[in-house]
Amino acid sequence: MEQHSQNQQELIAYIDELIKAEDYSTFQDHLAKLHPAEIAHAIESLPKEERITTWEYTPSEARGDVLTYVNDDVRSDLIDKTDLDELIEATEGLAADVLADILPDLPEKVITALLHDMDIQDKLRLESILKYPENTAGGLMSIDSVTIRPDVTLDVVTRYLRFRGELPDTTDYLFVVNREDRLLGALSLSDILTKPENLSVIDVYDPDIKYISANTDAQEIANLFEKRDLVSAPVVDENHKLLGRITIDDVVDIIRDEADHSLLSLAGLEDEDIFAPVVRSTRRRSLWLGINLLTALLASWVIALFSATIEQLVALAVLMPIVASMGGIAGSQTLTLVIRGIAVGQVGKANAKRLLYKELAVGILNGVLWATVIGLLAYFWFNNLHLGIIIGLAILFNLIVAALAGATIPLILQKAGADPALAGSVVLTTVTDVVGFFAFLGLAAMFLL
Amino acid sequence: MEQHSQNQQELIAYIDELIKAEDYSTFQDHLAKLHPAEIAHAIESLPKEERITTWEYTPSEARGDVLTYVNDDVRSDLIDKTDLDELIEATEGLAADVLADILPDLPEKVITALLHDMDIQDKLRLESILKYPENTAGGLMSIDSVTIRPDVTLDVVTRYLRFRGELPDTTDYLFVVNREDRLLGALSLSDILTKPENLSVIDVYDPDIKYISANTDAQEIANLFEKRDLVSAPVVDENHKLLGRITIDDVVDIIRDEADHSLLSLAGLEDEDIFAPVVRSTRRRSLWLGINLLTALLASWVIALFSATIEQLVALAVLMPIVASMGGIAGSQTLTLVIRGIAVGQVGKANAKRLLYKELAVGILNGVLWATVIGLLAYFWFNNLHLGIIIGLAILFNLIVAALAGATIPLILQKAGADPALAGSVVLTTVTDVVGFFAFLGLAAMFLL
Repeated sequence: MEQHSQNQQELIAYIDELIKAEDYSTFQDHLAKLHPAEIAHAIESLPKEERITTWEYTPSEARGDVLTYVNDDVRSDLIDKTDLDELIEATEGLAADVLADILPDLPEKVITALLHDMDIQDKLRLESILKYPENTAGGLMSIDSVTIRPDVTLDVVTRYLRFRGELPDTTDYLFVVNREDRLLGALSLSDILTKPENLSVIDVYDPDIKYISANTDAQEIANLFEKRDLVSAPVVDENHKLLGRITIDDVVDIIRDEADHSLLSLAGLEDEDIFAPVVRSTRRRSLWLGINLLTALLASWVIALFSATIEQLVALAVLMPIVASMGGIAGSQTLTLVIRGIAVGQVGKANAKRLLYKELAVGILNGVLWATVIGLLAYFWFNNLHLGIIIGLAILFNLIVAALAGATIPLILQKAGADPALAGSVVLTTVTDVVGFFAFLGLAAMFLL
Repeated sequence: MEQHSQNQQELIAYIDELIKAEDYSTFQDHLAKLHPAEIAHAIESLPKEERITTWEYTPSEARGDVLTYVNDDVRSDLIDKTDLDELIEATEGLAADVLADILPDLPEKVITALLHDMDIQDKLRLESILKYPENTAGGLMSIDSVTIRPDVTLDVVTRYLRFRGELPDTTDYLFVVNREDRLLGALSLSDILTKPENLSVIDVYDPDIKYISANTDAQEIANLFEKRDLVSAPVVDENHKLLGRITIDDVVDIIRDEADHSLLSLAGLEDEDIFAPVVRSTRRRSLWLGINLLTALLASWVIALFSATIEQLVALAVLMPIVASMGGIAGSQTLTLVIRGIAVGQVGKANAKRLLYKELAVGILNGVLWATVIGLLAYFWFNNLHLGIIIGLAILFNLIVAALAGATIPLILQKAGADPALAGSVVLTTVTDVVGFFAFLGLAAMFLL
């Protein structure tokens, strides 16, 4: 028996060592002992050349699964590096639902070959999944559910299962369907094992189980599983016909992806591939830097409007970054809270207005507090009472605007169909920079000189 | 049969409507139909007064579970609003492992009463959990696993299960133990149902299942479950004695918490309670604003060093925020990537150096690109070639420093035992602001005037 998996960092260090020592036979043996998900995770954590070497020494029977576990960028790199014949060999054993996920990334020739060798049953399965968008229940589901009729006894069910000889992974329920394959409910393995054998399925099964429509969005599926502690749930079409099931391991992936998305988007990152080629990373990130430059230029333009004022009182140039930065920080706190709230379904139409009031109240209180502190600091530093009052007013104003902007921007973006996490932070910084500089320098121009 | 849960936002709007209409009998009936997790999620999404009303109309049999589902802040608010007797009634039916999670939040008197009424078996269970820190396998585990001996037949196991009459939620494996309760392996429900009944457990069970030591850290547990698509795993002590099990619903919570933590910490937020009282929110967030102010003051001090230079050329004041802001954005991209990499175990000693090289290369390429763009912009805007060259050099320098800082700060913080996500962003901004202003104004002072 093996203790929980070798520490990820130790594994990467070990692989690195073996490759450097060119000890390829030990390397191959070690890879053969790993789970495909562990190989995938290691490949993602390695720099480019070692990725390819690791892929080359991955046992061919694990390669198909490794492809399904790595992220999109790494997958297309690995596919590029592999002969067509090897790709066919690696993928032909994959289950239809897993294959559906990676099919669009495979070369045309491999797809043709796979479809050619597939039996009609599997082809139909594959089509039924490809019909639905990738991040809906229909696109995510497995099609390996075990179904039974309501009018048999548990004893018959048990004999049927022994005849089958095995059950798909992560099976906790058999689905009860009628003659037209419409879902009636579910029978847990636990009930089959613990209830008297002479009872009928109809006496024991749960007719109230949660089911999912094929076009349900991934995020909603994750919320359901999280709230109900589910392990699997059936997926049905518009006629209530059973199509397949979603299992908890899919949901864990959804949750991880969604969380990654919020985190990375706030920094303008879309790739989670830490060892992406330098040129690819540079190109992707430079887009975000370019958008940010437009924001910064807008702020510079505001400052330029007040050049004459700054020339007369250079203390303004010294203090102005404080106004913009305090607004940016306060706004990003509200923004992050609202973006997370939207992602987990806690913030929306129903409570947006009250959340806005609460954030405004926090903005006003913190505004008063920090306006006082910074006002006093400026007064003592430059021995200029008016400067202190003006920076205080600018801080207060900018913190209130920051709360307003932080709470409303993500909701407006969401309504407009844009991604709140990706566009939110850049729009917010624009607002807090421009308002901050304008308020501070404008007040100074009006009242100070 | 009910379709996947009522949309969260619709539920909140409906509750809001019922409370406003003072239709408490419909409200009570509706709450009785909800899952405790749904009530908990709704309570978290409601403003303070409505939280209390919802709690008051929550059926008493659901209250204990609701307490376990809400976040820490909300839980202590609810506990504060509830009579001791009602608290005892709500919590006395909870399983020991669930109770262990909320026990520290309960008033002394409630704890005494609960312990007094508990049988010795349950008291021992509770103690065995409380012995381990909250975010280790020992603190997270359930103690409801079903154990069997290796030398019985599947037929005997089946009869034993029918005699038990039910199995704990999320049971996919029975654990095989010897006389001293040491873990030998596990037998899946699926195998019990599909393998010939006359076989012995010893012929069928899996001796290679993954097990978890009681002191394993939550994050490591989540990585194991994610990589291996597990539904449950046994927890053992240092003598390999079976203590309990971790189930996938605990792991989903770990993943959600960890992701929330990275996201919220980067904005200096520690509370995930969107409707926390205004004063509490203000206090918590003001700490972060205060720390940020110190950073901003440091930047201002650098600017103040060059007051004379700015007085002579006010264009410097106009352009200087661009240098700091481009550095901050580029640095936060690297920082976010590394923080996420550390959290999921992809970044560490084994590959830190190579990641640093890659990020440096990206920083240099983007530095050259944006130095050129911004240099040209500054040249045309102010018709000053030297100003263009100087801002270009400052941008290039700051983007390289940003890559260095973004890649190393989280690793240094982690080594020092600090939280990379919380402290990382403030340290990074300090570096990119100070370096940006210093490089730009310093070069200008030396070469421009």
